[in-house]
Amino acid sequence: MATDTRVRLIRTTGRLLRRQGYAATGLNQVMAEAEAPKGSMYFHFPGGKEELAAAAVDHYARRISDYTRQVLDDADSVRDALVRFVDDHIARLEKTDFAEGCAVATVAVESLPGQDELTAATGRALTLWVDDFAATLEAEGHDAAAAHRLATLVVTMLEGGIVMAKGQRSGEPLLQARDALLPLLAPPAPNGSARS
Amino acid sequence: MATDTRVRLIRTTGRLLRRQGYAATGLNQVMAEAEAPKGSMYFHFPGGKEELAAAAVDHYARRISDYTRQVLDDADSVRDALVRFVDDHIARLEKTDFAEGCAVATVAVESLPGQDELTAATGRALTLWVDDFAATLEAEGHDAAAAHRLATLVVTMLEGGIVMAKGQRSGEPLLQARDALLPLLAPPAPNGSARS
Repeated sequence: MATDTRVRLIRTTGRLLRRQGYAATGLNQVMAEAEAPKGSMYFHFPGGKEELAAAAVDHYARRISDYTRQVLDDADSVRDALVRFVDDHIARLEKTDFAEGCAVATVAVESLPGQDELTAATGRALTLWVDDFAATLEAEGHDAAAAHRLATLVVTMLEGGIVMAKGQRSGEPLLQARDALLPLLAPPAPNGSARS
Repeated sequence: MATDTRVRLIRTTGRLLRRQGYAATGLNQVMAEAEAPKGSMYFHFPGGKEELAAAAVDHYARRISDYTRQVLDDADSVRDALVRFVDDHIARLEKTDFAEGCAVATVAVESLPGQDELTAATGRALTLWVDDFAATLEAEGHDAAAAHRLATLVVTMLEGGIVMAKGQRSGEPLLQARDALLPLLAPPAPNGSARS
């Protein structure tokens, strides 16, 4: 029961962060939408809003990482995975009338100096996602440094794609950015000249 | 006098949007920091917060566009311009301890259905910036469609770079993403470049 409440608080917070960001998400709204008993908030999250938001970012990061690895496993290549990833991404944005973006993007752009717990959580999330792509790019033959650079570009493009899609209320910029990036994801030539 | 107040309200709002986003920026804070006389807010912006924020986004968009064109004019190529652009970007993020990002990014990720005036402003800003890069890429020999795709990727990378840099409190991911992207910016003509 107590655990259920904790999970509901985390999931509700994640949804609100994705939709409206950190500043606009108040604890009263979280409590109401999670149907959490009075007092449960500070029982589970004695550190208050920042601790709760950090837990929500961690939860969201793992969920997206699981999904990313699934897509990478299913696809024939990182290139094909990114095609599907962006298609799914746009479908989700359109389904919510461009309301629900990424919990990490909203928290990161609003973050201020001193919010160390929150910054640590967004940092963990972005590192995890970059590592997911980097591992597969390395398995495709890119050397470790090139794989990490490319994976960073992919995640940066996906996060920037939220800004572009929400900012223009259209999936088109994300498609354009993805299509421009795809040529970089070709596996390197097999003769060992992969270093860049 | 009245015009000065209007400009101060717009500039103060732009700074607050860059730093803390739309939801966290209250009209009382804007009035206080802009030292605006009582009543001036609704005299200049009868539409209230959304109208003021849209004006601030438009002002910020033009300022960044002027700066972008200056960098593109000064540099030998779009490639060199992007190197300098990202270096400047990181210097500014570091100077503010990663507090001040991009007013368009914060407003876009927080935007909700129904905020049409605000969405129109972020849409205009992103379109303007993409067009700035696309024009120079086209002048370097990319065909119009390829130039637009590449320019969209560049702006997407810069916006995503704010998420990465603020989210990890480091300029390193922006450098990595930029360096991974640079090979795409080589002029397409085999003979016609001033650079190699």
